[in-house]
Amino acid sequence: MTREPLSPAQLEAALRAIGAERYHNLHPFHRLLHSGRLNRGQVRAWALNRYYYQSNIPVKDAYLTARLPTSELRREWRRRLVDHDGEGDLPGGIKRWLKLTEGVGLDRQYVESTEGILPATRFAVDAYVHFVRDRTLLEAVASSLTELFSPTIIAERVSGMLANYDWITAETLSYFNARITQAPTDSAFALAYCKERALTVEQQDAVLDALRFKCAVLWSQLDGLYLAYVDPGLIPPGAYDPGAEP
Amino acid sequence: MTREPLSPAQLEAALRAIGAERYHNLHPFHRLLHSGRLNRGQVRAWALNRYYYQSNIPVKDAYLTARLPTSELRREWRRRLVDHDGEGDLPGGIKRWLKLTEGVGLDRQYVESTEGILPATRFAVDAYVHFVRDRTLLEAVASSLTELFSPTIIAERVSGMLANYDWITAETLSYFNARITQAPTDSAFALAYCKERALTVEQQDAVLDALRFKCAVLWSQLDGLYLAYVDPGLIPPGAYDPGAEP
Repeated sequence: MTREPLSPAQLEAALRAIGAERYHNLHPFHRLLHSGRLNRGQVRAWALNRYYYQSNIPVKDAYLTARLPTSELRREWRRRLVDHDGEGDLPGGIKRWLKLTEGVGLDRQYVESTEGILPATRFAVDAYVHFVRDRTLLEAVASSLTELFSPTIIAERVSGMLANYDWITAETLSYFNARITQAPTDSAFALAYCKERALTVEQQDAVLDALRFKCAVLWSQLDGLYLAYVDPGLIPPGAYDPGAEP
Repeated sequence: MTREPLSPAQLEAALRAIGAERYHNLHPFHRLLHSGRLNRGQVRAWALNRYYYQSNIPVKDAYLTARLPTSELRREWRRRLVDHDGEGDLPGGIKRWLKLTEGVGLDRQYVESTEGILPATRFAVDAYVHFVRDRTLLEAVASSLTELFSPTIIAERVSGMLANYDWITAETLSYFNARITQAPTDSAFALAYCKERALTVEQQDAVLDALRFKCAVLWSQLDGLYLAYVDPGLIPPGAYDPGAEP
């Protein structure tokens, strides 16, 4: 039995269904974070590890830009490099994330060294960069589609964290303000790209798998944090240990 | 203050010290496994995930072989390809691992598809393959040095599993018999290679870091198993679920 390709609208519905099942807003660590049930050390561990993800986003976007065939497409994707690396005096997402890590009390040099991050974080993030570099262009674009689901998680996270942690300020969380407008622009372009170009069953399967892969990249980072810093508290050798802080 | 390079004997001692601190025989999942405190589903999850590691060993060894500059060195490393992929009627390590997964009751096709493995397993193993492909040759060789520590863990594992699980037979564990003689030959060569060629402080640091990296690759696989199948039992979307078996 051969399958028929999905219509563009069906493909979008299938993509959204993956998000509804696998996006990391469903992870228990996210729930603990935004409901205020984490202590400072746990929030620090999250911010520290997530810095490695943030700082690799423009790297994967540069790889993706390099693979796009026209100026028009490269200019579209280049916007993401500006968003994350900044331009002129305007700080990008990485700098704003460092404001967050400083705001929660982490030493900047320690954060930038990435020496205290979990191996699980490093392996997941590196897998994402390599995926974008090595898979088909269509899969690389599709792997960005988790941004379809990020406005919800960002809103939950910011309001939840401000309401529940009196030691976290709106300024500390300013990273997320920009993302609330940037993410929908980015994901609209990537979604249109995939709906237009994923026409065969094989291409559509590859697009759906790319989104599943990316959901696993995000989920597995929260898995690592949960195991090390929530339950059972099994910190791997060499990783950040809130209990050992001066 | 400039550091002096270590002598070859000091380098070996430093490598062994890393193993004493970071090798995965110290992981709680290993202790549970060999002391008989895991149920069938948990042992199956271990065997299933570890298959992905086993099946990528000859891939990383082929990358390494491709990077060696002389026939003599390539022939030395080629032995590992034979060990894992087999020769003539002699099954290699991958086939013997499939005997193990069948012995613990997993469907062979399901195992070979790797569709039920944890993302944490996939990301860690892929990181290892990429490390061997992309880093310096010296680092690639050094990353194999966890084999210095494997005879102990194998002996513990086999005797522990046979004593504690009456549903596991010696034949099921036959994978490990071959490794008890293969691993020391392999690690002796790699250790001599590193002691001979890592002469500067930078080279020695790189060798030590490569071994730390590889310890993290192994450790993080057990972290993933622990989180998903022991405590708190947080199985990621799409991964093998012992409770859902028919």
